[in-house]
Amino acid sequence: MLRTTTCGALTLKNLGENVILCGWVQKSRDLGGMTFIDIRDRYGITQLVFNMDDNRELCEAARNLGREFVIKASGQVVERSNKNLKMPTGEVEIKITALEVLNAAKLPPFLIDDETDGGDDLRMKYRYLDLRRNPVRNNMIIRHKIAQAVRRYLDGLDFIEVETPVLIKSTPEGARDFVVPSRMNAGEFYALPQSPQTFKQLLMVSGFDRYFQIVKCFRDEDLRADRQPEFTQIDCEMSFIEQEDILNTFEGLIRTLFKEIKGIDLPEVPRMQYADAMRLYGSDKPDTRFEMQFVELNSLVKGKDFPVFDNAELIIGINAKGCASYTRKQVDELTDFIKRPQIGATGLIYMRHNEDGSLKSSVDKFYDEEALKGWSAAFDTQPGDLLLIMAGSTDKVRKQLSELRLEMGNRLGLRDKNTFSALWVLDFPLLEWDEETERYHAMHHPFTSPKPEDIALLDTKPGEVRANAYDMVINGTEVGGGSIRIHDRALQALMFKHLGFSAEEAQKQFGFLMDAFEFGAPPHGGIAFGFDRLCSIFAGLDSIRDVIAFPKNNSGRDVMIDSPSTIDSKQLDELKIKSTF
Amino acid sequence: MLRTTTCGALTLKNLGENVILCGWVQKSRDLGGMTFIDIRDRYGITQLVFNMDDNRELCEAARNLGREFVIKASGQVVERSNKNLKMPTGEVEIKITALEVLNAAKLPPFLIDDETDGGDDLRMKYRYLDLRRNPVRNNMIIRHKIAQAVRRYLDGLDFIEVETPVLIKSTPEGARDFVVPSRMNAGEFYALPQSPQTFKQLLMVSGFDRYFQIVKCFRDEDLRADRQPEFTQIDCEMSFIEQEDILNTFEGLIRTLFKEIKGIDLPEVPRMQYADAMRLYGSDKPDTRFEMQFVELNSLVKGKDFPVFDNAELIIGINAKGCASYTRKQVDELTDFIKRPQIGATGLIYMRHNEDGSLKSSVDKFYDEEALKGWSAAFDTQPGDLLLIMAGSTDKVRKQLSELRLEMGNRLGLRDKNTFSALWVLDFPLLEWDEETERYHAMHHPFTSPKPEDIALLDTKPGEVRANAYDMVINGTEVGGGSIRIHDRALQALMFKHLGFSAEEAQKQFGFLMDAFEFGAPPHGGIAFGFDRLCSIFAGLDSIRDVIAFPKNNSGRDVMIDSPSTIDSKQLDELKIKSTF
Repeated sequence: MLRTTTCGALTLKNLGENVILCGWVQKSRDLGGMTFIDIRDRYGITQLVFNMDDNRELCEAARNLGREFVIKASGQVVERSNKNLKMPTGEVEIKITALEVLNAAKLPPFLIDDETDGGDDLRMKYRYLDLRRNPVRNNMIIRHKIAQAVRRYLDGLDFIEVETPVLIKSTPEGARDFVVPSRMNAGEFYALPQSPQTFKQLLMVSGFDRYFQIVKCFRDEDLRADRQPEFTQIDCEMSFIEQEDILNTFEGLIRTLFKEIKGIDLPEVPRMQYADAMRLYGSDKPDTRFEMQFVELNSLVKGKDFPVFDNAELIIGINAKGCASYTRKQVDELTDFIKRPQIGATGLIYMRHNEDGSLKSSVDKFYDEEALKGWSAAFDTQPGDLLLIMAGSTDKVRKQLSELRLEMGNRLGLRDKNTFSALWVLDFPLLEWDEETERYHAMHHPFTSPKPEDIALLDTKPGEVRANAYDMVINGTEVGGGSIRIHDRALQALMFKHLGFSAEEAQKQFGFLMDAFEFGAPPHGGIAFGFDRLCSIFAGLDSIRDVIAFPKNNSGRDVMIDSPSTIDSKQLDELKIKSTF
Repeated sequence: MLRTTTCGALTLKNLGENVILCGWVQKSRDLGGMTFIDIRDRYGITQLVFNMDDNRELCEAARNLGREFVIKASGQVVERSNKNLKMPTGEVEIKITALEVLNAAKLPPFLIDDETDGGDDLRMKYRYLDLRRNPVRNNMIIRHKIAQAVRRYLDGLDFIEVETPVLIKSTPEGARDFVVPSRMNAGEFYALPQSPQTFKQLLMVSGFDRYFQIVKCFRDEDLRADRQPEFTQIDCEMSFIEQEDILNTFEGLIRTLFKEIKGIDLPEVPRMQYADAMRLYGSDKPDTRFEMQFVELNSLVKGKDFPVFDNAELIIGINAKGCASYTRKQVDELTDFIKRPQIGATGLIYMRHNEDGSLKSSVDKFYDEEALKGWSAAFDTQPGDLLLIMAGSTDKVRKQLSELRLEMGNRLGLRDKNTFSALWVLDFPLLEWDEETERYHAMHHPFTSPKPEDIALLDTKPGEVRANAYDMVINGTEVGGGSIRIHDRALQALMFKHLGFSAEEAQKQFGFLMDAFEFGAPPHGGIAFGFDRLCSIFAGLDSIRDVIAFPKNNSGRDVMIDSPSTIDSKQLDELKIKSTF
């Protein structure tokens, strides 16, 4: 090794030792005849000291070092006179006797420090410098630790990690596949997997019993802040189990991670029906760090000649506790918020429960005090509370009020990144109607089993069939989801039929799986966690970008390297494709 | 759970317990009024017993079960009268009181047993059934265990696992890239990585200090028995180290794996110069399970008017100990072996050291007994030995004799799969001449550093420059290789120049890395292990195919699923490409 120890290791215990350190020059200051240099590596920072009187040449060499120079410094561990107790190494410094520049450095375009002066674009362009900063690198270390802990936990429960192929056959369901032209099979294309779903089911048919994989998956969709074209999944599958077993096993995983990574005892994860989540939060991924549940007002408010309510399918509200003091301007802000195009509501009705006990609404013309008392009772308001009420068609108004609820959670400081609330959402619908293609799509995926008691509804009311499907939600983010699968060829064929596949199409696309089901497929089910999202929650980040070492930007290019790139026409010829750009 | 325990768990300790087992019907036999069924899962096999007298209906149901039916059986653990001590569960059986068929099964196309009647093609077509067989599934379990052990070892040494991108920029060096058309950047293509080389070097520039990743890599090359288009690497990099540190760290890894996975204490790994490996074994990956080193005979045999030797650049031989008794036919076989087109030698000369002490060669016309005594001394032959000698141009004859040496190793039983011999091969040449393109190529890759003392030769004798590059070889297979990297922009630029890049090309292709070197790159180096090969050695297999759950066949198609597949013209339009097939 070029060094005897790292920059985060030396303390008073090491006094008198001769050491060699390697690292980057963090900062440098001259003080009389002395020069102090902070040397940094992944493990910490140590102060080096040079003295003009002891060795003028060496001290001058030290004064010539620039920020981020890579150096090797030898010397003796001595006690510091002015100690910095905030640093593990802050009680000692190294009296340097030899110094070597291992590599010079140009002045970095932004400060390599916990708080940097670098803007977002600059930090991304020089990602390799941004990754030198503690907060960014620590995110990667958290990611590594979570991955290790996941593997330890699952290995301890007899799960086997199996690598499934990356170059696979394209399947028509789901998002758009990335495709890879095949040279050996000209005119044909591999697809990159959106998930290893069919392979893990085949492994269950193979009797692997318990499978997992931390695995890259791919979706060729337009990018958003929280979506990357390549993403990582913790992918799991178990045989001879029921839904309850999956919930217990993976609740155990999440609680273990919170304990090991953050030292937090996450309580037992509550469970909620999908229908209840929609009714109480207007979302299948409610943020349960705070209550503020929806209250339905239809029976209370209809028939008073207020057309907005009379014409609405659903009237719902939330109680923004302590917000009765909101000014007109603040309420207008909320109205503007819900009128944004991405939310699309038309108006907001409110009722103040004033500190003096009086009730005052924005629709006093239609509702007298008696009526408002009924509202107050429905929400159990206290003096100081503010009711926010919206009306409209069920699905839309729930979605809109859900956005307002989250906004109020933000305004009231109820969404602290260091508070964690997990939730199982159960019994998702099996199918959802797609207006565009005018047919049902699988809400989870076509391999999800319907609840046995609902199978009879498939023909009559397909939209009401519930699936053995579940999501795990943490702080309003869906971190994982899964289902008990179909393991019977006939039921799988029926499912494809309901999804609009002809028998021939189904056989062509998924025959390999349905054929396998005929050779003794065990009952099985599983779950997949979005690893990037999970890591971002543990790291306290809003975006997944900073838990990915080398993310893509919004145009699908590497933040740092100008990818993708053109390839030469000879190679295109070999692949039997032509660019039509 | 559907079961209370697995099929591998019950012993005499569990007598009297009521249990529920799930699994596959392995076999069934009727004996008088009894029916015995072996039920199998991943964990083992347990015997179920049914009795006509106790419950006729249940027993008849059991008699109707076919092979590979998936069943759930409840009953009581009782002691077996005729015990099978070869099985962990062989002292008990389960007296069944309830039986449920969870899934029926068609008769499998081959026997699901350790020894199967299924041919290779059939086993591959029904890979999900082949994976049910213990030997195949156990290979996957070994693979899982090795991956877990690798991560534990490296995590214990402060290595951080970082995921690098799969959709990257195409680089011109190395094998052919798989490319992925980019929809968001029409006319451009991502490449799939042949290795995360440049990214891991950037992580060193970022101060990650110690990185690893078990990662899929891709090469669009024609397939062979031991090469898959997607393969897995254990990819590692360290900063502030010298070659010695890498060798020690990763020798430690390999020895830990042998200890943990196979219970074998692998001795310290010997080291050999590349030049010596070529001289003594004619190969940069010698199989050192046996000696049989080459002996050079030029000085001994030239000048005796035997034109084959006189005209040869190099005359070398091996001593096949104990083979003096080889018949003429056997020697002819060896001659035929080396004359195969893939070896391409023209002839074989031999000398027997007979049991009676006499020496007899195939070139007695040119070499008298005295001369042969010299040969015998050079090889230190004993009575019973057979010398096999070849002549030709240095590179060719070494390669040819290397093949003959391995063949003799096979014939003499010196290449036992349960014997392990590891070797470091050091000091590879930096560059190798490519006849076709008439220029030098990087033997390892263009980021490998030359030995400082050899840099001066770059201009004059580039072929003689040695690299700080090393391979690990186990049993004649290269399992890993790496190098100390260049971390200096100027030296990297010089290297690209010697590889025939113009300054502009080098900047265009690798500017992102060379630019990064200017901001303080630490000295660094690393290694990558072929994970599939490593697993195949641990599993005692010749081919990597059976340590891969779903391998590709020789035409790049999934063994089981007909991939790749055609994609529709609409998607091609979106990608701005056209198939010219």
